Amino acid sequence: MSQQDFGLIGLAVMGENLALNVERNGFSVAVYNRTASKTDAFMAERASGRNFKATYTLEELVSSLERPRRILAMVKAGPPVDALIEQLKPLLEPGDILIDGGNSLYTDTERRVKAMEADGLCFFGMGVSGGEEGALNGPSLMPGGSTDAYQALEPILTKIAAQVDDGPCVTYIGPGGAGHYVKMVHNGIEYGDMQLIAEAYDLLKTVLGLNHEQLHQVFSQWNTTPELNSFLIEITSEIFTYIDPDTNLPLVDVIVDAAAQKGTGRWTVETALELGVSIPTITAAVNARIMSSIKAERVAAAAALPGPTGKYEGDTQEFINKVRDALYCSKICSYAQGMALIGKASQEFFGGALNLGEIARIWKGGCIIRAGFLNKIKKAYDENPTLPNLLLAPEFKQTILDKQGAWRDVLIEATRLGIASPAFGASLEYFDSYRRDRLPQNLTQAQRDFFGAHTYERLDKPGSFHTEWVPIQESTAES
Amino acid sequence: MSQQDFGLIGLAVMGENLALNVERNGFSVAVYNRTASKTDAFMAERASGRNFKATYTLEELVSSLERPRRILAMVKAGPPVDALIEQLKPLLEPGDILIDGGNSLYTDTERRVKAMEADGLCFFGMGVSGGEEGALNGPSLMPGGSTDAYQALEPILTKIAAQVDDGPCVTYIGPGGAGHYVKMVHNGIEYGDMQLIAEAYDLLKTVLGLNHEQLHQVFSQWNTTPELNSFLIEITSEIFTYIDPDTNLPLVDVIVDAAAQKGTGRWTVETALELGVSIPTITAAVNARIMSSIKAERVAAAAALPGPTGKYEGDTQEFINKVRDALYCSKICSYAQGMALIGKASQEFFGGALNLGEIARIWKGGCIIRAGFLNKIKKAYDENPTLPNLLLAPEFKQTILDKQGAWRDVLIEATRLGIASPAFGASLEYFDSYRRDRLPQNLTQAQRDFFGAHTYERLDKPGSFHTEWVPIQESTAES
Repeated sequence: MSQQDFGLIGLAVMGENLALNVERNGFSVAVYNRTASKTDAFMAERASGRNFKATYTLEELVSSLERPRRILAMVKAGPPVDALIEQLKPLLEPGDILIDGGNSLYTDTERRVKAMEADGLCFFGMGVSGGEEGALNGPSLMPGGSTDAYQALEPILTKIAAQVDDGPCVTYIGPGGAGHYVKMVHNGIEYGDMQLIAEAYDLLKTVLGLNHEQLHQVFSQWNTTPELNSFLIEITSEIFTYIDPDTNLPLVDVIVDAAAQKGTGRWTVETALELGVSIPTITAAVNARIMSSIKAERVAAAAALPGPTGKYEGDTQEFINKVRDALYCSKICSYAQGMALIGKASQEFFGGALNLGEIARIWKGGCIIRAGFLNKIKKAYDENPTLPNLLLAPEFKQTILDKQGAWRDVLIEATRLGIASPAFGASLEYFDSYRRDRLPQNLTQAQRDFFGAHTYERLDKPGSFHTEWVPIQESTAES
Repeated sequence: MSQQDFGLIGLAVMGENLALNVERNGFSVAVYNRTASKTDAFMAERASGRNFKATYTLEELVSSLERPRRILAMVKAGPPVDALIEQLKPLLEPGDILIDGGNSLYTDTERRVKAMEADGLCFFGMGVSGGEEGALNGPSLMPGGSTDAYQALEPILTKIAAQVDDGPCVTYIGPGGAGHYVKMVHNGIEYGDMQLIAEAYDLLKTVLGLNHEQLHQVFSQWNTTPELNSFLIEITSEIFTYIDPDTNLPLVDVIVDAAAQKGTGRWTVETALELGVSIPTITAAVNARIMSSIKAERVAAAAALPGPTGKYEGDTQEFINKVRDALYCSKICSYAQGMALIGKASQEFFGGALNLGEIARIWKGGCIIRAGFLNKIKKAYDENPTLPNLLLAPEFKQTILDKQGAWRDVLIEATRLGIASPAFGASLEYFDSYRRDRLPQNLTQAQRDFFGAHTYERLDKPGSFHTEWVPIQESTAES
């Protein structure tokens, strides 16, 4: 009996769809799910008449695969991955490859790669983006781990990935947890994109009073521009066309305004703090979800804390265009932050292995943040692989310099009218801080030396200095 | 030979000053330092003629103390604390109390309290704020840990703490790591205060062109107001009076504008993410230090990315007053965030034990954030112990409603002129988000359901709902 080309563990929807994708591309697939009835249902329905083999124990799965074995696990991140590894390890042989396709924390993946390699096995942490649709028809894949093993995976991964003009949306990312690290930052950027779109929507709706048909038109038009053409803008324009059959209202108006944050968004903020990389747009996006989640408290506060009473009195189309420019400038800042974070992580964690241009390229198709814009990022790194920040790439620099007036006007109007725009605002703060040779933290350093003798550096000579500041008596706060 | 009342381990400057403070208040103190010469120097100089006993081994230290023993360790946070515990444990007897006065991570303290209690010993994590000066003359103390043992510490702690109108700046904070948790948030708030002052300074200097003498006058005047009177405003006003003897320039102009972030500031952001509490002002303050630290990159970017060319053309004193109002409104938001974080942590981590009014009270003296303002916070919680947010306390609410126009004007001017004001901006975003009954995350939820079938909730009925959105073909990003 011939052996199967590929093994897949975990038949939830992402696992099923990836299995179908692999099989459609000409590989035989052995599948295993902890609950056998799920396997039977898959075989009877979606896998019916196709090149699949059902297995009901891990032993059976492993023994049905050709060597070196290639097994993709689509199980819940965290302890289930470790439990699976413990069960599989005694069954595998040197050179066999286990791939974790979940959203695992990159430090967990680092640990697992090391432990598996110590036993002669290969382990990959692979980011998979694109949702159910992408898994089935072509996701963006971010595999990282044991270097040598990638050759054995490449023929399959390049076929199942989304295909764009310059190749499949997969590349070997780097060693250890590099694949999951890049997927984590991808998700952080996705948080940023979604929040920026939410703020644009809020301004158009609240400041201009656009209805859902007008919103559909605006986002549809934006999706035709080379700057904003993207999956997320496209689905946004579609969302406004849905009418809720129960209420006959636009569906989006019936949905609760409370979003969760956890996992990859939070981890992106945490790793940026650890590495000392500034990512305020992404951070504001995570925070906006936190703020949205305290809905009942907000409803109570709204009655107690009225804002300004002004109205916008300018031209509608002019403001729409300014919001478009503000969205694009903010998006550039958000990606500048995410790519700077990956660049720093490459140096600090992954031996400089990560190729920022290639990473932008594999995000061009399949994944949630896919966008024409990513071509411009790839081009920027192709032209200058050591670019310190995307804001300095010629095209982005010129765009922001041209559009900063519109961007500022939008934030001025939002501030005047009391419409929170935290990610637009954080993006402009990023731009205005980054392009500042002299920030006011000289005062911060003076204060720290004053109360804690922490010392400071000087502009005119090297070294650490301390001033004997006159002590302040305990006088304040006693009245 | 009579036994000593108190033991102190670690004679760096904070340890020395706390030892001197304890002794000055009528307690005999045995001291120990790993390097004996440091102990000898302390005994020969600052401790000369006073009621100290030098000890040269931990055995000697422990055997010289009356029971139950009370020992304060002032050693570096992290592994050194665990190493010290391992050495001390065999020497201590049931009921003895070890206090860690460093900036330990609260989860480490939780772990240590449990381990020590399992052996019948008492362990306290105690936040100590006030720098060297506070340690010597009266710090703010935030002790948390084994509940029963606090009675044995209280007579000493209440004497060495700073004294304000309504008592000593110490109270039993709560169980486990509660003391270090509150000290961590105190430091996060301190980051916020310092950043807000830095932004006020930057606006006054850059927009109005005030010189150091004028800056001294403005901050001195602000320090006389009940809103802003505080240690940090006072030392800021003093800092501007220092002239660098080398250059004859104001010293603050010679100091490098690059500040570090680590430890407690970063931990505060991380715990807020874990608990789902929004603290954007404190987060912006931590991020501003990160941005300040890439000085060389900023200097290069400044030449490449010019900002707007406008000037401020209004009245100088009017703008000074608006900056003062913006500073105060932002400060209210920052404390609202910090107190909300402590409130949530009290419920989630510390069994509801933390008293927000008492915590505000013990910050009134001794510590870096001491300010008349804290009296208002204490009053707000005295009047309503279950206040959901400080923004809803009558006085703060009225103040912000009165001053929001000025606050918005400052941010509008900063946005127009290109002066980054990230913590002012994050504070206003917090206010404008918190008081909003309908935020735009309904669109976020629609997007998440569209691409990932994550489901959404509805405003009009309970439950989770999913819409069969029409799939989007892989069309974007391929051109």
